[in-house]
Amino acid sequence: MKGLTLILGGARSGKSRKAEELVTALPGPWVYIATAQAFDAEMQDRIRLHQGGRADGWVTVEEPLDLVAALSRANATGRPVLVDCLTLWLTNIILAGREVEGETARLLDLLPGLTVPVALVGNEVGLGIVPDNRLSRLFRDHAGRLHQDIARIADKVLFMAAGLPMQLK
Amino acid sequence: MKGLTLILGGARSGKSRKAEELVTALPGPWVYIATAQAFDAEMQDRIRLHQGGRADGWVTVEEPLDLVAALSRANATGRPVLVDCLTLWLTNIILAGREVEGETARLLDLLPGLTVPVALVGNEVGLGIVPDNRLSRLFRDHAGRLHQDIARIADKVLFMAAGLPMQLK
Amino acid sequence: MKGLTLILGGARSGKSRKAEELVTALPGPWVYIATAQAFDAEMQDRIRLHQGGRADGWVTVEEPLDLVAALSRANATGRPVLVDCLTLWLTNIILAGREVEGETARLLDLLPGLTVPVALVGNEVGLGIVPDNRLSRLFRDHAGRLHQDIARIADKVLFMAAGLPMQLK
Repeated sequence: MKGLTLILGGARSGKSRKAEELVTALPGPWVYIATAQAFDAEMQDRIRLHQGGRADGWVTVEEPLDLVAALSRANATGRPVLVDCLTLWLTNIILAGREVEGETARLLDLLPGLTVPVALVGNEVGLGIVPDNRLSRLFRDHAGRLHQDIARIADKVLFMAAGLPMQLK
Repeated sequence: MKGLTLILGGARSGKSRKAEELVTALPGPWVYIATAQAFDAEMQDRIRLHQGGRADGWVTVEEPLDLVAALSRANATGRPVLVDCLTLWLTNIILAGREVEGETARLLDLLPGLTVPVALVGNEVGLGIVPDNRLSRLFRDHAGRLHQDIARIADKVLFMAAGLPMQLK
Repeated sequence: MKGLTLILGGARSGKSRKAEELVTALPGPWVYIATAQAFDAEMQDRIRLHQGGRADGWVTVEEPLDLVAALSRANATGRPVLVDCLTLWLTNIILAGREVEGETARLLDLLPGLTVPVALVGNEVGLGIVPDNRLSRLFRDHAGRLHQDIARIADKVLFMAAGLPMQLK
């Protein structure tokens, strides 16, 4: 893996595992930017479990909102980076009342200049029936646009299903 | 692009952009058959915005229901045609209380005889959890069947994700 | 078709038809393991209709829960087998209050030892917006994991869209 890799897929499609596999094929240590937020005890447990499941050699950074800052710092270390995941980050941005267009524009400005290999994981959420609430429709619009924008500048784009990759780019 | 092209994908997957790209690679002017209905002022604005976003050289035809008639007339002009989209057309047919099987049969009868290049855009809606209301389940059955029927007679079928095409046929 | 084939796809994507096509390309008769349960008269009619729609040469076995037993018996006959579908079986397991991990583990233990060609059909349900009820989220987690586990040991994996296959493996 080199440059920017975008790994898309549905729930339980093997996105994260594929991303970890690609990143850990490079010499470590590696930076894991986790965008999940621990809102409650259950979520804290899940995140701890997740961390425990990863191989040694990962440096975990928890950053629900300032992904650009976290990526910049990771880039300065010269280490390969995995961001898991764009979809939770976007959710956090919206819940925090931040302006999505501005935040995603800052991310898209940063990405081409990164010098370390970066794998970005994203959830594909636009292939079901049109959601009946406006927020869900807005969310999938934002997520879809972000994926398109990143795919355009990515070196490689994978779409996962049942743990298997389809290479889109 | 020649003959019949079906472009499928989820919300914000880049379907319409890919379809416009394929059609405008042919000598213009081109016919754009828009099936969206302006139920309210917001939708009117969105449609106007959409029209403004398209390159010069498009002749836009708004036809929420009589797609067969619109396609026949477009075919008579000898110009390449884009239909955006089948899914809204199907929704309109159902909301208007028309019989889906009859309407789709008429479309499927017409398509093989068209002499101009035609790109049809469709929303893939069947890859989420089974919807809990009967109408949504019926709708995705109809949409899935229509896509299968058109894919069978299409010269080319693309499945879009993150703005990138997978060629199914 | 030989060994184990997994055929995934959304609603009305042509999964069952493709599976029947692959199985009936082998010398018959063939065993059809149907996991659908006839809860009411409408469902009974639908199942009967489904059976009627299949070509001669199919031996239909209705088995909503004990898929392992049904597959073992089918294997003993030496005949090619189609299971339609994994997703309904998983639903039945959950509704019956059985333990999903144990049941899927038994299936995964059995599959590699089967000597007849087997086609398994599964519904991809993880590509829409995150469902707002916990049971649906759990269900798509289970379904996604099962598909990944089977894909890992399968000889061939297809992802269907609009009746057309993408070969993942």
